[in-house]
Amino acid sequence: MNRHLLSAGDLDAAGATQILDSAEQMDAIQNRQVKKLPALRGRTVVNLFFEDSTRTRSSFEIAGKWLSADVINVSAKGSSVSKGESLRDTALTVAAMGVDAVVVRHPSSGAARRITEWVDCHVINAGDGTHEHPTQALLDAFSLRRRLGELAGRHIVIVGDLTHSRVARSNVLLLTRLGAQVTLVAPPTLMPAGVHSWNCTTSWDLDATLAGKVAGDVDAVMMLRVQRERMGRGSAGGDDPSRAAVGYFPTEREYAIGYGLSPARLDLLPEHAPVLHPGPMNRGLEISSMAADSDRSLVLDQVRAGVAVRMAVLYHLLAGADEASDGLRATEAVSS
Amino acid sequence: MNRHLLSAGDLDAAGATQILDSAEQMDAIQNRQVKKLPALRGRTVVNLFFEDSTRTRSSFEIAGKWLSADVINVSAKGSSVSKGESLRDTALTVAAMGVDAVVVRHPSSGAARRITEWVDCHVINAGDGTHEHPTQALLDAFSLRRRLGELAGRHIVIVGDLTHSRVARSNVLLLTRLGAQVTLVAPPTLMPAGVHSWNCTTSWDLDATLAGKVAGDVDAVMMLRVQRERMGRGSAGGDDPSRAAVGYFPTEREYAIGYGLSPARLDLLPEHAPVLHPGPMNRGLEISSMAADSDRSLVLDQVRAGVAVRMAVLYHLLAGADEASDGLRATEAVSS
Amino acid sequence: MNRHLLSAGDLDAAGATQILDSAEQMDAIQNRQVKKLPALRGRTVVNLFFEDSTRTRSSFEIAGKWLSADVINVSAKGSSVSKGESLRDTALTVAAMGVDAVVVRHPSSGAARRITEWVDCHVINAGDGTHEHPTQALLDAFSLRRRLGELAGRHIVIVGDLTHSRVARSNVLLLTRLGAQVTLVAPPTLMPAGVHSWNCTTSWDLDATLAGKVAGDVDAVMMLRVQRERMGRGSAGGDDPSRAAVGYFPTEREYAIGYGLSPARLDLLPEHAPVLHPGPMNRGLEISSMAADSDRSLVLDQVRAGVAVRMAVLYHLLAGADEASDGLRATEAVSS
Repeated sequence: MNRHLLSAGDLDAAGATQILDSAEQMDAIQNRQVKKLPALRGRTVVNLFFEDSTRTRSSFEIAGKWLSADVINVSAKGSSVSKGESLRDTALTVAAMGVDAVVVRHPSSGAARRITEWVDCHVINAGDGTHEHPTQALLDAFSLRRRLGELAGRHIVIVGDLTHSRVARSNVLLLTRLGAQVTLVAPPTLMPAGVHSWNCTTSWDLDATLAGKVAGDVDAVMMLRVQRERMGRGSAGGDDPSRAAVGYFPTEREYAIGYGLSPARLDLLPEHAPVLHPGPMNRGLEISSMAADSDRSLVLDQVRAGVAVRMAVLYHLLAGADEASDGLRATEAVSS
Repeated sequence: MNRHLLSAGDLDAAGATQILDSAEQMDAIQNRQVKKLPALRGRTVVNLFFEDSTRTRSSFEIAGKWLSADVINVSAKGSSVSKGESLRDTALTVAAMGVDAVVVRHPSSGAARRITEWVDCHVINAGDGTHEHPTQALLDAFSLRRRLGELAGRHIVIVGDLTHSRVARSNVLLLTRLGAQVTLVAPPTLMPAGVHSWNCTTSWDLDATLAGKVAGDVDAVMMLRVQRERMGRGSAGGDDPSRAAVGYFPTEREYAIGYGLSPARLDLLPEHAPVLHPGPMNRGLEISSMAADSDRSLVLDQVRAGVAVRMAVLYHLLAGADEASDGLRATEAVSS
Repeated sequence: MNRHLLSAGDLDAAGATQILDSAEQMDAIQNRQVKKLPALRGRTVVNLFFEDSTRTRSSFEIAGKWLSADVINVSAKGSSVSKGESLRDTALTVAAMGVDAVVVRHPSSGAARRITEWVDCHVINAGDGTHEHPTQALLDAFSLRRRLGELAGRHIVIVGDLTHSRVARSNVLLLTRLGAQVTLVAPPTLMPAGVHSWNCTTSWDLDATLAGKVAGDVDAVMMLRVQRERMGRGSAGGDDPSRAAVGYFPTEREYAIGYGLSPARLDLLPEHAPVLHPGPMNRGLEISSMAADSDRSLVLDQVRAGVAVRMAVLYHLLAGADEASDGLRATEAVSS
């Protein structure tokens, strides 16, 4: 594994599989009363978040603490940044405090990679603009693999607000790397500009896709959140959910009719195919409550997998960077 | 003890006494240089706060850390909630991360109980709307018991903004359960609607009550905070302290004259009777500085008791849930 | 050392040197994989911040955690304070929770000292208004000493927004205590009112000062941040960086020309003289990128030194308060 985790594309099949296998071991900790491994004692992880994301921040914080690391949360809103400090200076400052890893969430695509050009510590991309969110892709792959077994040859459909979704891009990269086939479904206004160069099929017709008429039988469907907060006028980093999703689709009702996972659409799916959603869900918009709460829903499995996958990533980057025997040492750590 | 602590009414006299006795043991830790017990090592506690409350949040955080738990703070303002996530989904997400207990503060009455219908982990109500705040009642009882001895047969007067006070309701439930008698004093506009069904006496006349003319001699008086931030126009969850307390009383000066604990009123109390206030205090409004800073004031004892009581609650819920020998194990933990 | 650290002036040369020597030992921890000392296990440190300062707060948090203390962050914006609680009651409440030390950042000069009149625990001033910031002065001295050796007889020039700078005041006190000579350079509008009583030379002419024509050859130059957020109309605690720096200087361009550390001015300095800046930097205003990023820049050394110095301060206050053998015990702790 590299020194950093910036893109799902940085992982080859073997590297990704190694992390997923470690995550299985890490996940076993959840069944114990004492959820604590000594692996990263005395290491310091900073959650450097330029955007709010309670869900991702908490998941990394729990992952770090269960590995016995010191975890420091730095919300870079209303901090030095509001005093006009550059991204470079903020990153250099955090790194100079002696931290071992920085987990970065930033509204601009490419921010995490820029930071690696400046600092010596490990950098994990926890979402950069509309670009990537590799640990989300890993937790999705983890959840899918648990339900479906090996992913090679599987057909995964990803539906919705692809333009604003770092989740979609990271998933296409990782799932295809693991041998799966991906179809992206969205209305034309929400299909990313360069999507023709992505390694996947695309469609505007959700019903036909789910029924297997576009790219063959479907093994899983992942519904993306309509990111109303990124659709307003003004900047992509805007955060006012009351803004209308100007221009992307006529009304929310129309979006739900065309692209929401209704009970009827759930019935189009083969019986073995699970439903995923990265959360937070807009129930009644991109996903119906019947789909979200059904036995096929992996939504909570994904949340749980998030902690395990992030433990595995932190472990591989911080404890195992220079070792050939990563897998072995993970086992020891887990059983100690 | 139950799996959760939602209401002071969930505790019977024996259960409440058990927690108060454990809290005595926990409190002894404050006299040590090394304030750390191993009891909850490897357990994870999330402070899930939908309202600001630095005081309560910090108290739970210290309690958890002194018991060696991992504590994660989740402020649910400006997080997924602002992205439109439902309470249910937020709670399920937090629980799915593998936490052992969720400490919930929410502006809506009943929120904590709703959460128990959805999640498997332990839930502690740290204040739900105008409904309940059971650990506050426990710390009040702890402080009273330390000063007065057993509470059976004691007469406690609670004064002030009863309409907006979860503290009052939880205290009436717990104090009467422990055998004390309670009198509530407030202007008619601040007397809760269904108060006639509560197990207590009520009065609009503070002087007569303190002088023992309404319900007998008084053993302690608890002044409640005038919650200006809940009295504005608009929603009960509003948080702008500059809003006038529209309609509840004519002026703050008039409130202070009728219902504030002035030095003169302090003299009406028997000499043994202490003064309590849950804080933060509005000095000069519901309580005079002379009362707040006198030898009779238990205000800081209450703050200290808060940590001990919350340690006891976390300990009983997380370490002792299925054990008959709670008390014993607490002793071991404390002496280890 | 005293019970508290409120002012750089509280330290005599021996006391300051003792802390700097301990900080050298603490700094060595950064070269280890396991950055963790047991010295403050079971002690609780509260970061009580009435102003945002991610940088200082994180530095104290890391320092506390590396010493194994429990660290609790309390942002007193949007908390009890917004409910009208007084500074005294907030401080008493925090202390009553059983904490061992409170690290205070407050917009009002003298706030930290006031708090010591009320509470029993140790108090560390992490910046009070325009008054003092003693750990900043210690980390500056630490960085200077590393680069220059002993500071006695050295000549340090401090340049910029002296009116709003607690850093300048603390540095003058500490540097002169350690035997250095200080020259302050600023435009007349940014020279503090009572500066004639300070133990230092002053000048309005940066070029002449750097060239050694005002007070002799220069050994180091410290550029201060133009605190635009303190220069607006309205209160000193205002925090809107978009406000113009009304009245203090004509334009930012003019300030940069007169008082910014341009490449040309960097060349005026003797070759051995380093450049310091407390951060966050306004590049292009008080400091050019060439100066900030040159080999002479100690900016990141200062950040790193901040953690070591704060570890040393916490250690001396909390572990060594009553001991004569501070130095010895620090060594033990570091080598344990």
